[in-house]
Amino acid sequence: MSLPQKVNLVEVGPRDGLQNESQPISVDDKVRLVDDLTAAGLGHIEVGSFVSAKWVPQMAGSAQVFERIQRREGVIYSALAPNLRGFEDALAAGVREVAVFAAATEGFSQRNLNCSISESLERFAPVMEAARMHGVRVRGYVSCVLGCPYEGSVSPEQVATVANQLHAMGCYEISLGDTIGTGTPGATRALFNAVAAQIPRGKLAGHFHDTYGQALVNIYASLEEGIQVFDSSVAGLGGCPYAKGASGNVASEDVLYMLQGLGIETGVDLDQVIAAGQRICDVLQRSNGSRVARARLSA
Amino acid sequence: MSLPQKVNLVEVGPRDGLQNESQPISVDDKVRLVDDLTAAGLGHIEVGSFVSAKWVPQMAGSAQVFERIQRREGVIYSALAPNLRGFEDALAAGVREVAVFAAATEGFSQRNLNCSISESLERFAPVMEAARMHGVRVRGYVSCVLGCPYEGSVSPEQVATVANQLHAMGCYEISLGDTIGTGTPGATRALFNAVAAQIPRGKLAGHFHDTYGQALVNIYASLEEGIQVFDSSVAGLGGCPYAKGASGNVASEDVLYMLQGLGIETGVDLDQVIAAGQRICDVLQRSNGSRVARARLSA
Repeated sequence: MSLPQKVNLVEVGPRDGLQNESQPISVDDKVRLVDDLTAAGLGHIEVGSFVSAKWVPQMAGSAQVFERIQRREGVIYSALAPNLRGFEDALAAGVREVAVFAAATEGFSQRNLNCSISESLERFAPVMEAARMHGVRVRGYVSCVLGCPYEGSVSPEQVATVANQLHAMGCYEISLGDTIGTGTPGATRALFNAVAAQIPRGKLAGHFHDTYGQALVNIYASLEEGIQVFDSSVAGLGGCPYAKGASGNVASEDVLYMLQGLGIETGVDLDQVIAAGQRICDVLQRSNGSRVARARLSA
Repeated sequence: MSLPQKVNLVEVGPRDGLQNESQPISVDDKVRLVDDLTAAGLGHIEVGSFVSAKWVPQMAGSAQVFERIQRREGVIYSALAPNLRGFEDALAAGVREVAVFAAATEGFSQRNLNCSISESLERFAPVMEAARMHGVRVRGYVSCVLGCPYEGSVSPEQVATVANQLHAMGCYEISLGDTIGTGTPGATRALFNAVAAQIPRGKLAGHFHDTYGQALVNIYASLEEGIQVFDSSVAGLGGCPYAKGASGNVASEDVLYMLQGLGIETGVDLDQVIAAGQRICDVLQRSNGSRVARARLSA
């Protein structure tokens, strides 16, 4: 199969990334990061999360961030909203797209969401309903699609079932996440093949972690399966909570570099993303998690 | 094209890797590293280099290392021998396979070898002749196959010409090196396609650097082109001399992890390679350059 000519990146650094950094970060710095990413040409930026600040202190101030970012027409600025209370807060902050998340395994669901998979889906039902009423789009995440820290291997059919439920509930796109980064390209192809038997490929996205260095090759394998939307995090923000000191989210810069080399259009300016990533790394006093950024900035 | 069922790794850490580390290392530690890699099941280990110690001080003592390593039957222990003097020293040390290297670009050849490409090939002629006489196999390296620090982009035809000359001179295998790590998978496939028009694919190997994080995906793209031999370096030993602080050689552990996931046989025990890599990193007081090792050791 020939590769797609165009790919959309969903930049998750400001939310998924910063949420997993140990350093606190000011609203000013978050706004600057989102504005930098907008300027770089990203078409979808996950900006924040409307959850209890008790559980995720890094996401306090999401409403202020949404209030102050400079929105560019056509760009999606989304937020996590796992329950109705969060959805209402998001709506009040002017959010027009939200995300909900489920796990592919019961073990991960119990330990991370404190409920079974089907209970988690039930919780989203009122969010889906309210979103429909207000014309807000909902994106669905499925975690642990290629391995689970509690259950080990995960079957593609298991993932397809959960993805299909999110799709049936009304999610316009389902992002399949290799949360612990253990996937390899053959498993990735088999996964998308199984899920695509139930959901059109155009509604699927890949979310890969680089913990085992496999993220780019898994994205390439996904491209070969016709997948055209990928989540990535500027400067590789967000470590891996399951392996201290290890990489988490794949760096947007590394993905962009590969896509550029493949002649695939993204509409994003790599140099501007590198600059945005280094700026936030300086704020966090953190080394840059993008190999492309490190190579370019040290050359 | 379906992927190969079996892959051979050429472990270049003890030579290419250590040569590019700034720390000196004792003969004892080198011997231990090679013995550890033998025990892990690697079938080809590049052990040292017979060049002037004035130019490459890290490779002093290669003869002693060859004398003291525990050779396992069927394993290839090779050395770099760029001229007749080096070849004779290698032969005296009991080396049964040597390697020579040429560049794909005149710019890199002039700056690294102090001569033109054709002059470098002329220098190898007596090595090839002596090797033939003594029944010693010669492997050829071509550097800068996907980009040159002095000339920028490199055409596949240019690489094919040099590779073909090395092949015609008698090299049994030609390893194509992405010295600065700028290659991406589409370019990698085009390269092997062009070179394979002149040399059978079974005589070609890939040598990828991870400077831009593209090494694994380039290896996967090479597998799709039917390439079955790859060079890699335990713990990612050897930085990138063209971008300070950036990665150089792809880590053997990361390659092995991907191949294992793809169900491709290598005969190598990943856990033992991880242990060997961490041991040498401790000696060098260097962080481990393998993501798989970091994830496994911190989990």
